[in-house]
Amino acid sequence: MNVSQEQTASHNLPPILQKKNKFTATNMYQRTVRLNISAPTQIVLAIGTELKVMLDRCAPPQSKSFSIRCTPNVHYKITPPITDKNALPYPLGPNTILLITMDTVSETAFDSKLSVRYYGEKTETLGDAILHLTAVEISLDVDADRDGVVEKNNPNKASWKWGPNGHGAVLLVNCDSESINNKKPDNENSDIGKVSDLKDMSKMVLRTNGPSQLPEGYKLSMHISQSTSESVRVFRPRTNTKTENLWKYQLLKLFLKDFLMVVGTDTLTQEVPYLGGSSELEFHVEGLRFPDKDFDGLVTINLSLLEPCGKGFPETPIFTDKVVFRVSPWIMTPNTLKPVEVYVCSTEDNYSFLKSIRNLVEKSGYKLKICHEYMNRGDRWMQDELEFGYIDSPHHRFPVVLDSPRDGDLQDFPYDALLGPDFGYVTRNALNEEVSSLDSFGNLEVSPPVTVNGKNYPLGRIIIGVAFPTARKGRNMTKVVQDFLWAQKVQEPIALYSDWLFVGHVDEFMSFVPAPDRKKFRLLLASPDAGYKVFKSLQNSGLGKAEMFPGKEEAISVNDLLSDKKLQAENRYVQNCIDWNRDVLKKELGLDDEDIIDLPILFKVMEEKNEDSVPRAVAYYPDMVNMIVLGDQLGIPKPFGPQVKGVCALEKEMCSLMEPLGLKCTFIDDFAPYHKLLGEVHCGSNVLREPFTVRWWNLEL
Amino acid sequence: MNVSQEQTASHNLPPILQKKNKFTATNMYQRTVRLNISAPTQIVLAIGTELKVMLDRCAPPQSKSFSIRCTPNVHYKITPPITDKNALPYPLGPNTILLITMDTVSETAFDSKLSVRYYGEKTETLGDAILHLTAVEISLDVDADRDGVVEKNNPNKASWKWGPNGHGAVLLVNCDSESINNKKPDNENSDIGKVSDLKDMSKMVLRTNGPSQLPEGYKLSMHISQSTSESVRVFRPRTNTKTENLWKYQLLKLFLKDFLMVVGTDTLTQEVPYLGGSSELEFHVEGLRFPDKDFDGLVTINLSLLEPCGKGFPETPIFTDKVVFRVSPWIMTPNTLKPVEVYVCSTEDNYSFLKSIRNLVEKSGYKLKICHEYMNRGDRWMQDELEFGYIDSPHHRFPVVLDSPRDGDLQDFPYDALLGPDFGYVTRNALNEEVSSLDSFGNLEVSPPVTVNGKNYPLGRIIIGVAFPTARKGRNMTKVVQDFLWAQKVQEPIALYSDWLFVGHVDEFMSFVPAPDRKKFRLLLASPDAGYKVFKSLQNSGLGKAEMFPGKEEAISVNDLLSDKKLQAENRYVQNCIDWNRDVLKKELGLDDEDIIDLPILFKVMEEKNEDSVPRAVAYYPDMVNMIVLGDQLGIPKPFGPQVKGVCALEKEMCSLMEPLGLKCTFIDDFAPYHKLLGEVHCGSNVLREPFTVRWWNLEL
Repeated sequence: MNVSQEQTASHNLPPILQKKNKFTATNMYQRTVRLNISAPTQIVLAIGTELKVMLDRCAPPQSKSFSIRCTPNVHYKITPPITDKNALPYPLGPNTILLITMDTVSETAFDSKLSVRYYGEKTETLGDAILHLTAVEISLDVDADRDGVVEKNNPNKASWKWGPNGHGAVLLVNCDSESINNKKPDNENSDIGKVSDLKDMSKMVLRTNGPSQLPEGYKLSMHISQSTSESVRVFRPRTNTKTENLWKYQLLKLFLKDFLMVVGTDTLTQEVPYLGGSSELEFHVEGLRFPDKDFDGLVTINLSLLEPCGKGFPETPIFTDKVVFRVSPWIMTPNTLKPVEVYVCSTEDNYSFLKSIRNLVEKSGYKLKICHEYMNRGDRWMQDELEFGYIDSPHHRFPVVLDSPRDGDLQDFPYDALLGPDFGYVTRNALNEEVSSLDSFGNLEVSPPVTVNGKNYPLGRIIIGVAFPTARKGRNMTKVVQDFLWAQKVQEPIALYSDWLFVGHVDEFMSFVPAPDRKKFRLLLASPDAGYKVFKSLQNSGLGKAEMFPGKEEAISVNDLLSDKKLQAENRYVQNCIDWNRDVLKKELGLDDEDIIDLPILFKVMEEKNEDSVPRAVAYYPDMVNMIVLGDQLGIPKPFGPQVKGVCALEKEMCSLMEPLGLKCTFIDDFAPYHKLLGEVHCGSNVLREPFTVRWWNLEL
Repeated sequence: MNVSQEQTASHNLPPILQKKNKFTATNMYQRTVRLNISAPTQIVLAIGTELKVMLDRCAPPQSKSFSIRCTPNVHYKITPPITDKNALPYPLGPNTILLITMDTVSETAFDSKLSVRYYGEKTETLGDAILHLTAVEISLDVDADRDGVVEKNNPNKASWKWGPNGHGAVLLVNCDSESINNKKPDNENSDIGKVSDLKDMSKMVLRTNGPSQLPEGYKLSMHISQSTSESVRVFRPRTNTKTENLWKYQLLKLFLKDFLMVVGTDTLTQEVPYLGGSSELEFHVEGLRFPDKDFDGLVTINLSLLEPCGKGFPETPIFTDKVVFRVSPWIMTPNTLKPVEVYVCSTEDNYSFLKSIRNLVEKSGYKLKICHEYMNRGDRWMQDELEFGYIDSPHHRFPVVLDSPRDGDLQDFPYDALLGPDFGYVTRNALNEEVSSLDSFGNLEVSPPVTVNGKNYPLGRIIIGVAFPTARKGRNMTKVVQDFLWAQKVQEPIALYSDWLFVGHVDEFMSFVPAPDRKKFRLLLASPDAGYKVFKSLQNSGLGKAEMFPGKEEAISVNDLLSDKKLQAENRYVQNCIDWNRDVLKKELGLDDEDIIDLPILFKVMEEKNEDSVPRAVAYYPDMVNMIVLGDQLGIPKPFGPQVKGVCALEKEMCSLMEPLGLKCTFIDDFAPYHKLLGEVHCGSNVLREPFTVRWWNLEL
């Protein structure tokens, strides 16, 4: 026996006998490495990786047993386990495997060592296989616990889970514009123009620890997939050399303000510097697109350690760390959220309307923004051209306007007037689809938070209007916009039937107002039944000669109105259509009848023939449900109903329905500049609201 | 009080007091209907629907209370509940609601009735609102419990759940061709050519019960969404009139063999006949496309009852029943499944190879199919042009060939020779992508069933080869094919690194063979280390002068081979590449080292420069892992190794590794017609295998 006691004493015992190793085989990446008898093998080991050596594979012929020695920071384990630890050298079987780990990083390259000695039949030495080892620690880190700080090596950093007990980092689509002149959304700019743009990005940190340089030929490489490259760009401060130290690097970052794209559009992989010692390299991750039909919103970024395979051969990734982000969805804000700014158009014919709105907004303490005629070119339908929403992350959030494919004369307003620093812009273009009136965003609303059969929608549900699925002909919202809305996921949309209306918008028959009780809101629905009830009650009270539209050329007595059989038939049809929607809304929002208020509104069928030659309805008098909701202040289209003792019977009915909820009604005359053009107060305005306090990633989806 | 005791006696008590109603409000569709004082209202009620009447809505002015009477088959309930049932008439509040259900169908139209009488302050009658009711039963049915029979109104028919306790009907893509002449896949034919085609479709039954005709203006309509119309077509036997009875209809079905498309391509909605009485109308549902990136495989079909809304107004859907199907994924068959047919090409230079294959296949008891030269035009790579798989449903299954976008001279074979009755065809065209050698299906394999960290893959996992994600340049399988494979879901793919090979196929370094023990299979991997071990052992045994490739112009002694440093370096690189894949396969298939067998195979780097100027490897001698597996018979490329006592040392080593598993090795000389053209036995053959006994819908996904 030529293996002396002295020799074996310096061998490390298998780590399982020494101390509990912090990595276990199941969560550790195992890497197969080869030994070589003729020359030492150099290996770089990323901490967290287990090296697996098939001892028989490169053993000299006739090898029967082996022994192992190594420096103290190297740990090993043999499988199948050696039963008799004292029977040195250990017997070599065809499946004998050596597993090697290290748990402290190297100070210099190849400062650690493990050697295997092979013995023959008579324990004569047949050869030594030597491994020179360098251990490095590599961790690509993100804010996976969503507290605004990039923690070190979160075990959940490579996956995404919804909910308050969930995890996973968040990314914003960088769709605002840091520039005010020559602006375009920052995600359409290939470089970073201003340092302020960094706050729209998510931080990602590469933490490394090891020798001052990686051994010759080893590299760090960041890489993403082809499809991810359409969704994300990663930037880092420009550095001059790989070897500069952290101090220098911080200096550059402060003074040069110069950033380099690492991976992103057209660049799937790129080397990143290894800074040496214990270092942190900061990256800035920019989201490029919103979740959509072809993109679930998840983005994976990988960082690999590459090993050289000899001259002329490509490098092999020997360790890969990865992180996952989810792009923030675009989130709509219901009427129950606090207003910030009210938007309205100024036209040559709406001076007094504008004055009424200004009074209401100023009284309520919000800000009024007027879109002037040079911009709106006479298009007054502020509700229809755009929808306000926002995006949110633990580190930053800002409003984002969704620009409708409607593209009326207001079409430049969202881009030219709204897009700016911390005000994002997104749109969807209907390429091969016909855009109809149903693509106007009066046809895109959102409910307050609801719970439906135990399922929570703490951000509410989006509501759009379409044609009946059973209709052979009919108008719909374009598929590109519908796909976008459904893909945001956090406000699961409901499709109502709005094609029965000439204009075809859900805001013509429904709205939400805040309430102190029950579900904290009421759904308001236009109701011809409720309308007829008011008129019949007037007739019954002997007021049949009172006039609807008093003093206007449309004036008509209550008696004449009630005797119009055609109008009755039309309103029976309209009530049918609204009732169908009522039933859907009750089911999809989990509402009781007590959560719904029927407003007295009559409709009439538009005489003008449309292309489908289907009768379609418009409001007979100003459509009170089409209101603007500013906290407890309601701006309601003035209905011009019959006067009873100097009070409009319809206004009185409206007030009696709203005031018990603590709401204050202001009736705004929109007759000439809006109602006669088939819209009302809501169609002609838009409200930017505060975001939800509930964060979207805390939803249980 | 003018409500006599006699009158109220005939009023039904609220159903909750009479008997347990089989529908509860939570699972029942609630429909709002209006009453009318001036004329009776006609209502058709689908059983399972609850009618909701807001009693205050159309009450005459000054109404204070009400009473109800109805025919015995009508049930009603009042909310808020009447506390004192004897206090007739009941008080009328603003939120008083009447809920009406029926649980037996009508024999004639409007044979049931409910009336509401409204009373004033002094219980004087103010008016009666009368409902004339017709109850019908409508159920669109599918085989949601997957037993091959379309059961009635399965409560789970409108959703899909994976697993043995799951539910949801199954659809096949009708991708075979009933015709042999002028054939094309049946899903590309807009009509049904042969009655035999019906067996490739799923049955769907519309069960109705009610009066002999629906009341005037009511209709049944089947409808699907725009995106569903790309995935499915629904047919029914052509009928002459809506009123014909079931007997007539059965007769037509037998004799006319004439089918009509109800919904599908370009037809989103269509009326379907109501047959009257208790009837069944059979539909045949045809799948048109496989799951893919833009299609999750789920298809919803709706059937609505439409109510007329008066002359000139569109009908309203008042009841909708829906069913869901999932399209069968395309499923690959691993080497461990029983072969059915072996496919191989006949070329002008492969006569003796073909003879060897014929011997092996006939010995094994399987069928040999030869693709002749007029069809293969010299392209011998039968493995590369196509992959066999199958689709499965409770009622039918058949093999489906996936045609590679490779499109060599064999390109017409899958369509021209394989597509036929009960033999389906599917392909993916790379429109804007470059097709590379990695798109050949030697680069598409599937593992036997595995369990990985507790997750079962009872149909195995698909394996493809791509470039390293860290490589700046590299070849990949086209995205269209990768997207297709991932979308099938039931054999979740694994991407290996195969771009290090000149040809670039995973079958050049791996295969699976059946085994009696452990996981019931072994993974075979090519191993230069194992190869060198054989040659060194020969040298050590004094056989260094024995020749590799004996008798061939390539002949080289073991000593010369072992002293080739360049070859050693190349094989070290190759072993690195294979080890990388070994580590991935162990992790992704949950394998232990004992599940893997290293086969003695050397590689060399191809001298020919490729466009990426990256060195790429080919087998140095016939690549034994590239074998054909037929049950326990292995057809292995004859390696032409050094002869020891008349026996090839490589064959001997191979046998010693395979025979303990009960496998029989037949070495087939493919040197000239395959090996020298950079392929081997596996590349030159293909095997159609029996499907799994495990059904894909029983997977827990």
